[in-house]
Amino acid sequence: MGIMSQAGDLAMLVGKGRKQFLTQLRPENKLQTHWGVLRHSDLIEREWGSRVKSHSGIEFLLLQPTLLDILLHTKRRSQIMYPKDIGYLLLRLSVGPGTTVLEAGTGSGALTSALAWSVGPNGRVISYDRRADMQELAARNLDRLGLLERVSLRLQDIELGLEPREIPAVFLDLPEPERYLTQVHQTMQSGGVLGSILPTTNQVSRLLAALDQHSFGLVEVCEILLRFYKSVAERLRPEDRMLGHTGYLVFARAIQAPEPVASAPPDG
Amino acid sequence: MGIMSQAGDLAMLVGKGRKQFLTQLRPENKLQTHWGVLRHSDLIEREWGSRVKSHSGIEFLLLQPTLLDILLHTKRRSQIMYPKDIGYLLLRLSVGPGTTVLEAGTGSGALTSALAWSVGPNGRVISYDRRADMQELAARNLDRLGLLERVSLRLQDIELGLEPREIPAVFLDLPEPERYLTQVHQTMQSGGVLGSILPTTNQVSRLLAALDQHSFGLVEVCEILLRFYKSVAERLRPEDRMLGHTGYLVFARAIQAPEPVASAPPDG
Amino acid sequence: MGIMSQAGDLAMLVGKGRKQFLTQLRPENKLQTHWGVLRHSDLIEREWGSRVKSHSGIEFLLLQPTLLDILLHTKRRSQIMYPKDIGYLLLRLSVGPGTTVLEAGTGSGALTSALAWSVGPNGRVISYDRRADMQELAARNLDRLGLLERVSLRLQDIELGLEPREIPAVFLDLPEPERYLTQVHQTMQSGGVLGSILPTTNQVSRLLAALDQHSFGLVEVCEILLRFYKSVAERLRPEDRMLGHTGYLVFARAIQAPEPVASAPPDG
Amino acid sequence: MGIMSQAGDLAMLVGKGRKQFLTQLRPENKLQTHWGVLRHSDLIEREWGSRVKSHSGIEFLLLQPTLLDILLHTKRRSQIMYPKDIGYLLLRLSVGPGTTVLEAGTGSGALTSALAWSVGPNGRVISYDRRADMQELAARNLDRLGLLERVSLRLQDIELGLEPREIPAVFLDLPEPERYLTQVHQTMQSGGVLGSILPTTNQVSRLLAALDQHSFGLVEVCEILLRFYKSVAERLRPEDRMLGHTGYLVFARAIQAPEPVASAPPDG
Repeated sequence: MGIMSQAGDLAMLVGKGRKQFLTQLRPENKLQTHWGVLRHSDLIEREWGSRVKSHSGIEFLLLQPTLLDILLHTKRRSQIMYPKDIGYLLLRLSVGPGTTVLEAGTGSGALTSALAWSVGPNGRVISYDRRADMQELAARNLDRLGLLERVSLRLQDIELGLEPREIPAVFLDLPEPERYLTQVHQTMQSGGVLGSILPTTNQVSRLLAALDQHSFGLVEVCEILLRFYKSVAERLRPEDRMLGHTGYLVFARAIQAPEPVASAPPDG
Repeated sequence: MGIMSQAGDLAMLVGKGRKQFLTQLRPENKLQTHWGVLRHSDLIEREWGSRVKSHSGIEFLLLQPTLLDILLHTKRRSQIMYPKDIGYLLLRLSVGPGTTVLEAGTGSGALTSALAWSVGPNGRVISYDRRADMQELAARNLDRLGLLERVSLRLQDIELGLEPREIPAVFLDLPEPERYLTQVHQTMQSGGVLGSILPTTNQVSRLLAALDQHSFGLVEVCEILLRFYKSVAERLRPEDRMLGHTGYLVFARAIQAPEPVASAPPDG
Repeated sequence: MGIMSQAGDLAMLVGKGRKQFLTQLRPENKLQTHWGVLRHSDLIEREWGSRVKSHSGIEFLLLQPTLLDILLHTKRRSQIMYPKDIGYLLLRLSVGPGTTVLEAGTGSGALTSALAWSVGPNGRVISYDRRADMQELAARNLDRLGLLERVSLRLQDIELGLEPREIPAVFLDLPEPERYLTQVHQTMQSGGVLGSILPTTNQVSRLLAALDQHSFGLVEVCEILLRFYKSVAERLRPEDRMLGHTGYLVFARAIQAPEPVASAPPDG
Repeated sequence: MGIMSQAGDLAMLVGKGRKQFLTQLRPENKLQTHWGVLRHSDLIEREWGSRVKSHSGIEFLLLQPTLLDILLHTKRRSQIMYPKDIGYLLLRLSVGPGTTVLEAGTGSGALTSALAWSVGPNGRVISYDRRADMQELAARNLDRLGLLERVSLRLQDIELGLEPREIPAVFLDLPEPERYLTQVHQTMQSGGVLGSILPTTNQVSRLLAALDQHSFGLVEVCEILLRFYKSVAERLRPEDRMLGHTGYLVFARAIQAPEPVASAPPDG
């Protein structure tokens, strides 16, 4: 026997045409869909991966959602980051079990969730935002995933300074990251990795110019394109339409300032 | 004061033209480069992110390598996976702190390292390969990173069956993954995620055909393109050359077999 | 003074949000749009590039359509080829003033129009299709552009053979081009260029296998991705969505068969 | 019998590993290669598409070069444009039989050749450059192709003005096209198409800003990616490496200036 769903679990139901529904299982609830109603009590203590039926007899798959499934269903009020970008930046920023990572802004908390999930119970995410409504939405999204206790949400404009010190990884999802590089460098461990995502080339140019002047080195700019294929063995081909752009990713390492050139000795 | 390098640490030295050197710091060693010699004893107990000089006066940056830096320097005898693909598959397979994940084959151990790093001290990686020489190389690479104890290396052809049960995530980096789907489905948790990387479209077609017949659902095929830019503020543009292809990624969920259609009752 | 529109000309009107209307100017006609009515009599003998107004005062640009504008407005019953692919294949097949080129099938005549336009009054397009309805649609589309007299439409399945000889350039837009390679090689000039567009990788594999066996050489497979940007100086960035796939382009040169290995002389 | 090569023809020889040689056939010449010597006298009056052998017995294909083959072998002193971009711009600028088109600068004459080839004997290419050495190189390249008489080479900085009037298509391959838009608009037919290629995003932003102020409309920015595949039926896959960038293409239509807002009547 496999692993069973429990009351309180997040569950994903997948119906016709791969339409997905994400819900927290509560015995008293029902899931309403175009293909009929599913009672949560029928979904609890079922093996994950089971086929279940709505009251009108339409089949659904009952799956435990992966992190990626959850990210794609996060309630949002702002543009969220895409898995293709998140996957790469987690690796690029060395965010893993036990890591401390700082981000600004919090936004809807999608990236915050991925960070909190990746650092595990012994890691820590510090997330700044100056908008209370966004942090409240993010807190609800994190709480639903059981990840809230790994995250320190700080309601503050980072222009006023960042309190933590020796942070090894910082991610800025802000329109003008170049304005905060002094504060960011102070909060970072020397050698730590800074990441940022920016939608326009003009923003990238402004950030690049500023990084040079704030003791950041090994600067790297890239973009990631994810192309899905129709998964038909006999007619394999890319999908007709694809996402053309999310943002440019910029990475850099915090380094020590060059030593000032020694002034001429007084008496030469 | 920031964090200091210690004897035994992996260190990355970055010199002119971003040429990188990865080395384990040992007081008695020297690093030979085209830009002069660096004595390890001068690199130990230095702040990470420092600027250091070779005996001939050329400046290097002393950095603590990230997981990605390490992957790109892994000693290899086979094609290794690229960070663009690894980042996405970690997210797609929900590999994080505490996860148990199974891969085949081990190869040079680059993906094994990334998996072991991501699952943390409470997770587990089970890695099959039928070539002893590859598993020995992988073991050395893992040991150097302090990750060997999280990994069970199994020297066996997976066609003979996979012992573990209820594995939530499996990754196959093998030329003919379709040959092992019966064994893989048995080893997997129902609802678990299977991933694979395949260089050619013909291989993808063969895997797609087989997935349909082995109770795998929600099949997805994609490819990831990573495009680097010249990081010059006033002349921002993509690099002239880019990686055109690594492999197609195929993902699927292990599901329960459909119920057989009931045969007519014997006597009405 | 610039060049003036004439009755009978094809005209393109561009309104709000770049909405485009293609119409043949006839003094008695009106163009109905969501932004009001434009009388053709007000559009005739106006300078191309003028700003004109609908009866409700909304401004439109009056432009002479380019070949590309026309292709994008071709009435179709089948998938038409995209300018990104047509532009490359014209160059790749050396289709220019005075060329004779053969295509099959005719389809809606979009590529036929581009070929006929490119070969000029001294060139010739021979276009085969086995469906009468498609050739009638293509004939209407070609006639509207004044290109019909450069085109020989042949209502015939090319499996029955191709009559012309010494054709330097052939383009096959058919699902199974590999079935006709014997006929195609006979119709082609030795050294001539064959092109084909195929949506799936399986079709490409089948064509490649057949080309090897039919004295075609220098085989090349490629795909072209066209990515549009938002044309805003201060916020330059790619469009959110792009076309992910049209088809794979396959090109080859008709070459002479290798000489058979001489059999041993009868009597030494 | 097929078409035969003649003395004076351009010929392409294709040897092992698809190595290509472009040469003008002259009875007294020899082609030296790593795979032996080919005497031109053995290549003249041979059928195009023939297999020929060097003195050391290595086989070559004898082909009549296409325009694209010629472009890829153009002698150059500057970066030349790539076929993927040329094919699209010919279509986008409606350059075909009988067209008059203006370009600046001439460069090595690769685009000039493609334009001259496409406009045919009744068309005209006007090409400006301020460097005499480039125009001399371009003239030699054009002459070799028999295209020189279709081209008016003008040795002049276009900042000083452009003489022709009512030009329907203009292409600027210059680092600062925004400096010449007044002159360009004057030389163009109203409604005509302007194209430009620019390597950096900063240049694109500057051009976009200027186009708005010089009565150009319907501005479009795009880039074209061409991805080659290994043409092996059983192992179809993209090439490992691809061209990552050539330039951004910018297109716009010359339109009439908006009518000035009527000033208040003198006496109310």
